[in-house]
Amino acid sequence: MTTSRQRTGDTLLAAVEGGVTTIDLGRQLRVGMPQSPNHPQFWHTLPRRHGDMLRPDGGSAANDMISTGTHVGTHIDALAHVSHDGKLFGGLDAQEAGRGGKYVELGVHTIEPMVRRGILLDVARHLGVDVLEGGYEITAADLEATLSAEAVDLRPGDVVLIRSGWGRRFAEGAPYLGTTTGVPGIGEAGARWLTDRRVHAVGADTIAFERLAPGGGHSLLPAHRVLLVEQGVYIVEALDLEQLGEQRVHEFVFVLVPLNIYGATGSPVRPLAVVSA
Amino acid sequence: MTTSRQRTGDTLLAAVEGGVTTIDLGRQLRVGMPQSPNHPQFWHTLPRRHGDMLRPDGGSAANDMISTGTHVGTHIDALAHVSHDGKLFGGLDAQEAGRGGKYVELGVHTIEPMVRRGILLDVARHLGVDVLEGGYEITAADLEATLSAEAVDLRPGDVVLIRSGWGRRFAEGAPYLGTTTGVPGIGEAGARWLTDRRVHAVGADTIAFERLAPGGGHSLLPAHRVLLVEQGVYIVEALDLEQLGEQRVHEFVFVLVPLNIYGATGSPVRPLAVVSA
Amino acid sequence: MTTSRQRTGDTLLAAVEGGVTTIDLGRQLRVGMPQSPNHPQFWHTLPRRHGDMLRPDGGSAANDMISTGTHVGTHIDALAHVSHDGKLFGGLDAQEAGRGGKYVELGVHTIEPMVRRGILLDVARHLGVDVLEGGYEITAADLEATLSAEAVDLRPGDVVLIRSGWGRRFAEGAPYLGTTTGVPGIGEAGARWLTDRRVHAVGADTIAFERLAPGGGHSLLPAHRVLLVEQGVYIVEALDLEQLGEQRVHEFVFVLVPLNIYGATGSPVRPLAVVSA
Amino acid sequence: MTTSRQRTGDTLLAAVEGGVTTIDLGRQLRVGMPQSPNHPQFWHTLPRRHGDMLRPDGGSAANDMISTGTHVGTHIDALAHVSHDGKLFGGLDAQEAGRGGKYVELGVHTIEPMVRRGILLDVARHLGVDVLEGGYEITAADLEATLSAEAVDLRPGDVVLIRSGWGRRFAEGAPYLGTTTGVPGIGEAGARWLTDRRVHAVGADTIAFERLAPGGGHSLLPAHRVLLVEQGVYIVEALDLEQLGEQRVHEFVFVLVPLNIYGATGSPVRPLAVVSA
Repeated sequence: MTTSRQRTGDTLLAAVEGGVTTIDLGRQLRVGMPQSPNHPQFWHTLPRRHGDMLRPDGGSAANDMISTGTHVGTHIDALAHVSHDGKLFGGLDAQEAGRGGKYVELGVHTIEPMVRRGILLDVARHLGVDVLEGGYEITAADLEATLSAEAVDLRPGDVVLIRSGWGRRFAEGAPYLGTTTGVPGIGEAGARWLTDRRVHAVGADTIAFERLAPGGGHSLLPAHRVLLVEQGVYIVEALDLEQLGEQRVHEFVFVLVPLNIYGATGSPVRPLAVVSA
Repeated sequence: MTTSRQRTGDTLLAAVEGGVTTIDLGRQLRVGMPQSPNHPQFWHTLPRRHGDMLRPDGGSAANDMISTGTHVGTHIDALAHVSHDGKLFGGLDAQEAGRGGKYVELGVHTIEPMVRRGILLDVARHLGVDVLEGGYEITAADLEATLSAEAVDLRPGDVVLIRSGWGRRFAEGAPYLGTTTGVPGIGEAGARWLTDRRVHAVGADTIAFERLAPGGGHSLLPAHRVLLVEQGVYIVEALDLEQLGEQRVHEFVFVLVPLNIYGATGSPVRPLAVVSA
Repeated sequence: MTTSRQRTGDTLLAAVEGGVTTIDLGRQLRVGMPQSPNHPQFWHTLPRRHGDMLRPDGGSAANDMISTGTHVGTHIDALAHVSHDGKLFGGLDAQEAGRGGKYVELGVHTIEPMVRRGILLDVARHLGVDVLEGGYEITAADLEATLSAEAVDLRPGDVVLIRSGWGRRFAEGAPYLGTTTGVPGIGEAGARWLTDRRVHAVGADTIAFERLAPGGGHSLLPAHRVLLVEQGVYIVEALDLEQLGEQRVHEFVFVLVPLNIYGATGSPVRPLAVVSA
Repeated sequence: MTTSRQRTGDTLLAAVEGGVTTIDLGRQLRVGMPQSPNHPQFWHTLPRRHGDMLRPDGGSAANDMISTGTHVGTHIDALAHVSHDGKLFGGLDAQEAGRGGKYVELGVHTIEPMVRRGILLDVARHLGVDVLEGGYEITAADLEATLSAEAVDLRPGDVVLIRSGWGRRFAEGAPYLGTTTGVPGIGEAGARWLTDRRVHAVGADTIAFERLAPGGGHSLLPAHRVLLVEQGVYIVEALDLEQLGEQRVHEFVFVLVPLNIYGATGSPVRPLAVVSA
């Protein structure tokens, strides 16, 4: 006879069965959505549609073909994504690490699925604007003040999401990239403020997570260096934080499950904020 | 000043902070893994590697390119995937539904992320074998008996995962497809047993979820018809249920977040079983 | 014993052995080159590079992965590419023709490789400019006058290439598309002038062969209708005609070999103009 | 006034206008065709079909998406494809050559389009068989005897195509790869016989051009080393030589135009044999 491991009174299951609300933090993947030109363009098509052929029993199946980069739509950066002076996180030789065409160490397959505490720092709301300006650097003081205003605490292992409001421009397409305007976000100081608090991962509602200077492109990414290379903190980009911000949900269960792509530098993801209903 | 919506005492968050164990039910996405030849092959490569170029500040970024079907690796079937006699679930005209190259209705983007009760029916264990034979049809009586032996109940809205043990053959490659041997799984009767219980989604550790006859290929898929076309129940395929089975975790929080691909018929997924630690 | 079909004195082979000059009319396929956003972006990457692994004998092989539309770079339109009022060339039902996901009739695989007489109509030179203005419509009179000035005749079955000079802008990237400026080219009248002369195929140094109005995009393409739908004349786009124009080679052997892609609507090509040295 | 460079009496054009016969030496590119599993699978699909949308004027355009390796179907190997002991042709450091993700030197974009003399060595016919056996090594003596029997001469700069008859198995699918049976072809000695005669390029009707031992896979490829690495001779694979063999056309104008893919290691091609009609 089969014996189940007794889970009677599983606290988590009881909480879920008590009712939960799920807030989707991911962007829909659509052909033509804004994305960095540095990455292969997301494309989806249907090789087989209903009506193409019919099995003798009357059934038919339609299917898909996808071609894409991994740093498209809402996505997570694996530690293998960025190196500095030839080194990855932990001092790994960056060139050697890619030999064979897979980042066997520090690839996206090494990121554990996340089911952990998440915190929203709604900087735009705290600063009283809908959208921070392109190129605005969110300072450590901004982060500190927002946290304080929200009256939540930040604990080691948390995932911190920073709302600049820039996500409202996603629907505009190219302007979301901020090529000429720049994009708001933290800089090196903000990154250090976060890693000092020993967060597990960070995210934002912008294409590159950190501040981009007007006209500057992706030429300097100091926060990526601090987070991915020095401290081993994952970065989630192009989040949709509008609903979370509007509902003032500042503390939640953060769920993020990267695709388990062997040796890749990132993955499209669809993170969730989950709270008891 | 910012006011957070009070979440003090959020039951779910408390349960997560009390500690959870996450069991990964997804297969790793690797070039060369077994997959149905009906779908574009999964391929991953690195267009840019560290060592290719260095920014003036010493930084470099590596990235990925993916080409793939959506019914590869562990994946979910959207209702748009299968039609019968020219109709999709709800009686939608199947050919019309695909006009424009997107399944606007019933595409994978219409599947809500799942955070709900999951049940493992470990049929192989109940029948006292490591792996059910190719072509074996898991009967309604098998499902009933397994459920009873596991002493769990099945409730409307649950996700039911059926373990045949066939997942152990994933590592063998082509034999996992069962082209000549057939593959074990439920048939039409098993599908009706499940839909009578008003489950939300079902899954198995095989390539096509349901029984494939030896040498028969995918020519007849009655369980797909019952589930996707008649009853609107999602199907998850190529799950890795070995750890779940071994640890006899028969009841759990099931987490599945499909990629939000507009108009697609399916998505690779990495489902989780989560329990309090 | 083997007997060869006697080819002694093969005129063509003798002409080739006498020496030929080949002028390349195709654009190099590069990631980031200008292309229509209506088509999947050209992308090339190396999954395997030398240095990734070494066979025991010291050998290694590098390889490629390509994702692309077919109407990218220099390319040819098959007759299946365009329909009008639901009909393809010859009155074929356009929707039915694509059933199964392949254009079995009129797909690019039905275009015979071309080794035939080619004529350059260097309209820009004849009109005394380097580059015709965006939106300029090359008239039938322009074509007639250019032909006359070049003192060549036009014969049924010829391939006619029209130089607007706009190809000089290919290197500029986005401006080559002419989204705001429009693009010079023939209109419906020019197309009729060409088909009245029973040409086999036509080409130009622009993205869409025919005139695009400033700001008008690809909303109206009358020359495509006349050529592809009404008369069954192939169109070659994004040619590099600069060298041909500069050297005043107005009559040549035109060689074009489309990829034999079963059921596709077009193919990237690399046409040649070949003349005796 | 425009002055054409006088081409009156262009010998090549006259020969073409005198009438030519074109024999297609390329395989049709189809989803599911046999190809080496070492390369990304060829896949073609139609993102947009007629019937998906209609422009206000009644027009519509269908288009394609391709994902593929370059060493699929009939294809040419660039010199960058193979290295030995870390060196490419000319002693280039093989790992350095790929830095940046493009083979800037020796990539397929460096192969000049070919319009030159071609010779068919129909070894199968000379040896009196339809198809040489899997694993049979075509010797230098076989090449010499075939050439002699065909009563053609071989000149520096020629392209030599070797017919083993194995191409008849292309339609069978997987057996064409010869995984268990091996594949007929030349070995190191045959390669030296060819390079001693200073040929420009070589080709065969098999997947890997040279002999593959039964069960041996692609573990040793000495002819590739001699041709690509030591002597800089291009290799064309998976040719369709059946029509050429049947018609006993042993001497012809060989036309091959690789796609001009910047930095790639190969290209699908559709070579032609052209003779005066």
